[in-house]
Amino acid sequence: MKNILITTVPFGVQNSAPLDKLKKAGVNYVINPLGRKLREDDLMDMVGDFDVLIAGTEIISEKVLNCAKRLKLISRVGVGLDGVDLLAARQRGIQVSYTPDAPALAVADMTIGLMYSLLRSIHLVNSQMHEGEWHRHFGRRISEITVGIIGAGRIGGLVLQTLNRLGCSNILINDINDSVQLDSSLKYKLVNKDEIYAAADVVTLHLPLTKESLNMIRRDHLMKMKSDAMIINTSRGGIINEHDLASILSGGHLGGAAIDVFEQEPYVGELIRSPRCLLTSHMGSMSVDCRARMEIEATEEALRFISGLPLQGAVPAEEYELRKREWV
Amino acid sequence: MKNILITTVPFGVQNSAPLDKLKKAGVNYVINPLGRKLREDDLMDMVGDFDVLIAGTEIISEKVLNCAKRLKLISRVGVGLDGVDLLAARQRGIQVSYTPDAPALAVADMTIGLMYSLLRSIHLVNSQMHEGEWHRHFGRRISEITVGIIGAGRIGGLVLQTLNRLGCSNILINDINDSVQLDSSLKYKLVNKDEIYAAADVVTLHLPLTKESLNMIRRDHLMKMKSDAMIINTSRGGIINEHDLASILSGGHLGGAAIDVFEQEPYVGELIRSPRCLLTSHMGSMSVDCRARMEIEATEEALRFISGLPLQGAVPAEEYELRKREWV
Repeated sequence: MKNILITTVPFGVQNSAPLDKLKKAGVNYVINPLGRKLREDDLMDMVGDFDVLIAGTEIISEKVLNCAKRLKLISRVGVGLDGVDLLAARQRGIQVSYTPDAPALAVADMTIGLMYSLLRSIHLVNSQMHEGEWHRHFGRRISEITVGIIGAGRIGGLVLQTLNRLGCSNILINDINDSVQLDSSLKYKLVNKDEIYAAADVVTLHLPLTKESLNMIRRDHLMKMKSDAMIINTSRGGIINEHDLASILSGGHLGGAAIDVFEQEPYVGELIRSPRCLLTSHMGSMSVDCRARMEIEATEEALRFISGLPLQGAVPAEEYELRKREWV
Repeated sequence: MKNILITTVPFGVQNSAPLDKLKKAGVNYVINPLGRKLREDDLMDMVGDFDVLIAGTEIISEKVLNCAKRLKLISRVGVGLDGVDLLAARQRGIQVSYTPDAPALAVADMTIGLMYSLLRSIHLVNSQMHEGEWHRHFGRRISEITVGIIGAGRIGGLVLQTLNRLGCSNILINDINDSVQLDSSLKYKLVNKDEIYAAADVVTLHLPLTKESLNMIRRDHLMKMKSDAMIINTSRGGIINEHDLASILSGGHLGGAAIDVFEQEPYVGELIRSPRCLLTSHMGSMSVDCRARMEIEATEEALRFISGLPLQGAVPAEEYELRKREWV
């Protein structure tokens, strides 16, 4: 009998299909009993008895893997692999799979929502109104601005597509792959990052966390942006230097920022003192439909593995190759 | 020499073109010296010396018009005519013009922005984060929901078009004109209001304030809506009963509301105590581009009138006819 540990919580709450599938398959499963994101030492204590992890964004380091004597599969609910030591897993014969498509729609949707809030000062005025203050702010319509997208993968591509549909066609794109191919019907221009900092009214980040992206946007990059420009991060914490962003906002540069992801989560850092910084709690992928799809796909992958069937979402070889260069 | 009073403020601040046009034409103009929305008695005191008003949403009642001995034109910056006693103006030979197209894009844009905030709890989580609390909320993507649009005029039509472009095709529409014609390429279904209350995840209002729309949505209508449904009003205050909405939200019914317009503005009423009520300060039309277009169009209309040229934005006869039935 195989044992599955589900580390990500909540799980099976919005939609019970993943739990129904596990029950029907008759496998043993345990849902993270702590009810919160596990720390490295929590997982080291817990992981020993399990053959399969259905995992969230926890740190699954070499130290964790050394405690995981029975582990044969990490089935990741979601797409980010920055928490998983892929190379250490491969050395131990542990396979890793993920669900890269499911969260993309939800994260792109959240990004567009944050962009509207920033452009029309919705979050700011809402706070003022609830304090009994009536201030009216001029804003900009989404179709009138220049957007810079850094990272043109699944999510960046969807953000581009949505902006085009909303009539926003002044879009500057930068990707680590200089010859990235996007749908030729879309309106955009490939540029370098400095051109984005100089020209964009809104910059939005859609990158994995790697050695190259860690701390990529610091004081000097933010200062290159227009004085009323805005920046959005729904990708991974640590890409924008949080201290530099807080300091620049309090100094009056930039029109605002929207930050959904943080170096340390839950976040309680200095950005909470900046009313112009729209803060959300790593909710990009948290739409009911996308979360259900992610949980179902990760569960089906775990059950395929247990039945000896081939994986459908195995992390591709290039992620391991990149890791050799970029692991942080 | 003709004298123009500009009552709406700020005016010519984001874009100086309207003031440039007035200066070039060599007319006398005065900008509202109180710097705030004028009350009826303010305007009664001020209006006597002026031939033309370039007006905002102030109350221009029969009492005001009785003090306006020289007045020949009210050139309204914007579209809502609920503040203007059209029939009293006509009796006195005062023409009224407006700029109905210019604000529509900005109001539709704001409506979509508020919808994203409600669906993904952006405003709510932002407030919690700034208080040091980390809560994660599941949301719904805009393409997955059923939207009810009450009022299928310029703005309602643009909201429909934008939602379709965002992949939202479950759209229920109700209009005072049962046989309203919308672009046949758009996806929607004409229904009665009760069908909207029963089925919509988000209800959005795009109506003028008339006898029929005043206090149109009260406790019993809100209670017909789904327990997690949301309602948006970017049209005119007074259409949703504010007390009933506040009471229903505090009782736990409805997923939330977004209210941009109020019976009394500036607003300081009981909705400010409901965190689930997203509040903004009548900012629907306040995009830089649309506001500039409204101010320019209203100024050009005033200058055309002074030069003896025909008006281009005269309020059409049907508005006067409706007023005979519906004036509130």
